[in-house]
Amino acid sequence: MSTTLVVFGATGDLARRKLVPALFTLHCKGRLPDDLRIIGFARSELTQATYCGSVWASMKDYADLICQEDAWSVFMQRIWFVQGDLSNREDVARLEAVLSDVERDETEANRLYYLSIGPALYEPAIASLSAAGMNREANGWRRIVIEKPFGSDRASAQELDGVLHAAFDESQIYRIDHYLGKETVQNLLAFRFANTMFEPVWSREYVEQVQVTVAEEVDIGARAGYYDGSGALRDMVQNHLLQLLTLVAMEPPSSMEAGALRNEKVGLLRAVRRWDSAGEAAQNAVAGQYEGYAATAGVATGSATPTYAALRLFIDTERWRGVPFYLRTGKAMAEKVTEIVVQFQKSAHTLFASEDGDEQANMLGLCLQPDEGVHLRFQVKVPDRSSVTAPYDMEFHYQATFPDQSIPEAYERLLEDALRGDASLFIRSDQIAESWAIVDPLLEAWSAHGASPRPYHRGSWGPAAADSLVAELGHRWLHTCSGHG
Amino acid sequence: MSTTLVVFGATGDLARRKLVPALFTLHCKGRLPDDLRIIGFARSELTQATYCGSVWASMKDYADLICQEDAWSVFMQRIWFVQGDLSNREDVARLEAVLSDVERDETEANRLYYLSIGPALYEPAIASLSAAGMNREANGWRRIVIEKPFGSDRASAQELDGVLHAAFDESQIYRIDHYLGKETVQNLLAFRFANTMFEPVWSREYVEQVQVTVAEEVDIGARAGYYDGSGALRDMVQNHLLQLLTLVAMEPPSSMEAGALRNEKVGLLRAVRRWDSAGEAAQNAVAGQYEGYAATAGVATGSATPTYAALRLFIDTERWRGVPFYLRTGKAMAEKVTEIVVQFQKSAHTLFASEDGDEQANMLGLCLQPDEGVHLRFQVKVPDRSSVTAPYDMEFHYQATFPDQSIPEAYERLLEDALRGDASLFIRSDQIAESWAIVDPLLEAWSAHGASPRPYHRGSWGPAAADSLVAELGHRWLHTCSGHG
Repeated sequence: MSTTLVVFGATGDLARRKLVPALFTLHCKGRLPDDLRIIGFARSELTQATYCGSVWASMKDYADLICQEDAWSVFMQRIWFVQGDLSNREDVARLEAVLSDVERDETEANRLYYLSIGPALYEPAIASLSAAGMNREANGWRRIVIEKPFGSDRASAQELDGVLHAAFDESQIYRIDHYLGKETVQNLLAFRFANTMFEPVWSREYVEQVQVTVAEEVDIGARAGYYDGSGALRDMVQNHLLQLLTLVAMEPPSSMEAGALRNEKVGLLRAVRRWDSAGEAAQNAVAGQYEGYAATAGVATGSATPTYAALRLFIDTERWRGVPFYLRTGKAMAEKVTEIVVQFQKSAHTLFASEDGDEQANMLGLCLQPDEGVHLRFQVKVPDRSSVTAPYDMEFHYQATFPDQSIPEAYERLLEDALRGDASLFIRSDQIAESWAIVDPLLEAWSAHGASPRPYHRGSWGPAAADSLVAELGHRWLHTCSGHG
Repeated sequence: MSTTLVVFGATGDLARRKLVPALFTLHCKGRLPDDLRIIGFARSELTQATYCGSVWASMKDYADLICQEDAWSVFMQRIWFVQGDLSNREDVARLEAVLSDVERDETEANRLYYLSIGPALYEPAIASLSAAGMNREANGWRRIVIEKPFGSDRASAQELDGVLHAAFDESQIYRIDHYLGKETVQNLLAFRFANTMFEPVWSREYVEQVQVTVAEEVDIGARAGYYDGSGALRDMVQNHLLQLLTLVAMEPPSSMEAGALRNEKVGLLRAVRRWDSAGEAAQNAVAGQYEGYAATAGVATGSATPTYAALRLFIDTERWRGVPFYLRTGKAMAEKVTEIVVQFQKSAHTLFASEDGDEQANMLGLCLQPDEGVHLRFQVKVPDRSSVTAPYDMEFHYQATFPDQSIPEAYERLLEDALRGDASLFIRSDQIAESWAIVDPLLEAWSAHGASPRPYHRGSWGPAAADSLVAELGHRWLHTCSGHG
C-alpha cells in the first residue's frame, strides 16, 4: 500500500509557504503515513535536486522547525518533482504514467491531488485529470483538494461544482477553507460540545443577541487587484463569518463524524431567514468603505466595493427564533479582533442595581484572535457597597495555559485529515451553495447602479449606520475580547 | 432626633478589636448617623478619658485607619463611658437614667444595645434591661444585637429565644453571625442573584452535586477550653456551613429586603431532609479528630469531640430533589480554604474525549477564602490533538480586580445595617431553630456512648471514611480554588 500526494502548483506561494512546511512538520511529528510520497508538479524546469533545494531554502522562514536538517534529509526522500503544465493533457498523461509506474507493484495505491493553483485554472486542470483517468478509484482512493474561493456568487459556485462533479464524486472532494483548520475554530467546537453547562442557556429563551466580529486593522495593502473585484462580502462574510455563525448557532451534531457535522452546518445555513429582495437585504445590512480606499492604486475610479459589511440575520429554528445575529467585518478598523459575543437576557426582576445598566446582562465572549480565550462577563458586587454590582470578566487564555505548546498551522491539521479521509473540516458542496444563497441578494443590492458604501474613518469601528442597524432592536456593538495582547 | 449605641462589655476583646475600630472606620467614611453617640458600658473603673485612651491605644492594631488622629478627636466626642455591672439591676437603672437625661430634649431617641458579652451573661443582662424598661419603644426604636453562639442545640437555642422574646420583639433582635457580614458572603448573593446565565442551570436537571468546604490549616491552638465542649458541628456546621448552604441553594427571594431574604433561607433549611434517628444521621456523616488532639492541654482525656465533620444532605424541593449536598469542615487540614463547588452533570453523549474522564463535568467553584474569586472549570481542546479535551479554569479574582480597594470588615457592614434597621444579614429566630433541627440528630449520634471520631493526619483532607461517604454515590471531594494565594 502506498499514498501519493500530488501538489499541483508546487512552486507557488501556497505550496512553498504553507503546504510543504506543514508536511515537513507532520513528518517530524511522525504523523505522515510511512509510505507517503509527495510529488511536486509545476511548469518550472527544475530537477529533483533544485526543487528540494528551493523548498528547503524557504523552509526556515515558514516551517515550525521542530526538527532540523537530519530530518529533512529523510523527508526529502519522499519528494519527487515532475515538470509539466496542468492544463496540458499530454503533460498530465505523462504524470499519470509516472504515478502508475511507481505504483505498479502495489495492491493498493491511494492518491491525494492538491490543486494549489489559481481558481481560473480549476476547470482545465480537472479536465486534464479526468482525461488521464486520474479521477477513477481503481486500486485505491483518489481525493482532490481545492482551495477557496469557491465561486464568486451562487451561480458561479454551482458552475464550479458542475465541473468538479463531472470528474469526481462529492465524497472525493475536499474543499479547504483553511480558517476551519485553525485551532481557534476547533476550540470553538470543543467549547460548545464538550461542555454541558452552556447548552441549556444556548437558545432564544436566554440569549438576547449574538454578534460575530472579524475586524482587521490593516487595509487592503497591495491586494487591490484581487480585492476591488471581491469586497467584504466575498472576502469574509460568505466564508469566514458564516462559518463562525454555523459553529456558534448550529444544533449539536450526533457525532463529530463528517456527515453529521456537515449536515448540521448546512441545516443551520438553510434556516437563516432569506431576504426576498435586494431591497430587503439592503435594509438589514450596512456597507462601508474606509476613507482613501478609492484612491488606492489598482482600485477602480469611484469604486463602490465595500471594505466593511454589517448584517443582521435571523435564524428560523425553534432554538433561535427572534434572536438577532449580527455579523460585521472590515478592513482598516480600530483593532484586529475576531470574536463572538453571546449576550444573555437581563433578569426580569433585579435584586441588585448595576453601576452600568447597559452592561448588566451576562455576556460570553469567545475570542479567536489575537488573544485566544474565553471571557465570561458577569456581575460582581462592588466592594463596600451593599447592593451595587459592576460587570467583570471571568477569563481563560490559551496562551497562558499552554505556554510551551506551539499551535499547529491550519494546514497541518487539514492535510492530515485529508490523508486520513476525515472530511469534517472540509466544506461540502451544499454548504457553499447555502452560504452564497444568503449573501447573493446583498451582493445584488450593493452592486446595483447608484449604490455606494458609507465612508468610515480608518481606525474606527465602521460607519455610524452600522450602529443604527443594531440600535433598531435596542442593541449596540459588543467587544469583550480586548485588553489582552 | 438622636441615636445611641450602647456597647455592653465595652472593655472586652470583641469591642476593642472589632466594634470600636469598625465604628471609627464608619465614622471616617461618613457613614455613621451625625447624631450618633456611643456609650461604652463595663465593670472596669475607668474615666471617660482613660477609656478613650485605651481604645485609641489598641486602635492602630485593629482599625483600617483610613483617617488619623484629627478624625479621632472628633470621633472621641461621640464616646461616653458608663461604669457598671450588666447583671446588677441598679447599675443598669443608673445607665437608663444617664440615657434618659441626655435624651430628655429629643422628640425621637433611638437606641441600639450591643451585647458584647459571654453567652452565659445573656439571661441576666436581658433581665436587667427589661427591669429598667430599656426594651420599651417609647420615643424611638430599641434594638438589641447579640452575638453567636445561639444555644448549643435546639433546646438551648429555644430557651435563649424565650429569654429574648420575654423582653424584646423578634423585630428588635439582631442576631449577628459576623460571617454573614463578610464581603465574600455578600458576593455570593450577588453572584447568584445579579447574574442570569447561571440560574437556568441551577437545579437538579443540570447539577450533579454541590460541595461546601470550610477547611482550616490551624488546629484548635489554645482554645481547648471552648472547643472541646463544642466541636466541629457547633463551631462550624450549624452556623457557617448551613449559612453557605442556604445561600447557594435557596430559591431567589422576591427582593433583597430582610423578610423576603430570610423567608427563603428558612424555607431552604426546612426543606433539608431530616434524619429520623441518630443512627440514620450517623450513616450520612463522618466525624473526624486530628491526631494529637486528645493530648492537647485542656482537652478531656479520651475526648470524642470531632474536629472534622462531613455530612451528606438532600434538599427536598423540586429544584434539588435527588442532588447530594456535601458539607465538610475541619481543623489541622491540608489547606485553609472556604469554597463551594457546583458540579454539573456530564453530557449524555460525548463528542469529545476528555484526557481525564472524571474531570469531564463542568464545575463552578465559588471561592471565599483565602483567594476570593470564581473558577469555572470547563473543557478546553488540547492543542494539536483533534478531539481531546482537558479541564481548565476560567477565573475571576477579586483582589486582582480591586487591588486598591480595602475590603471592609464584616462588623462595619453589620453595625451600619443594624443602625439603619436592615436585618437582612442578621439571623432570624426560626433560622436558628431550623439549623439546630438539622444538626441535633448528629450531635446526639456523635455524643452517644462509645461513639468515636475517625482519626486523621494533620495536614490531610480528613479521614478516609469521608471519601467513602461521597464515593457511595459515585462522587469524590472537589477542590477548585487552590493555586492562587
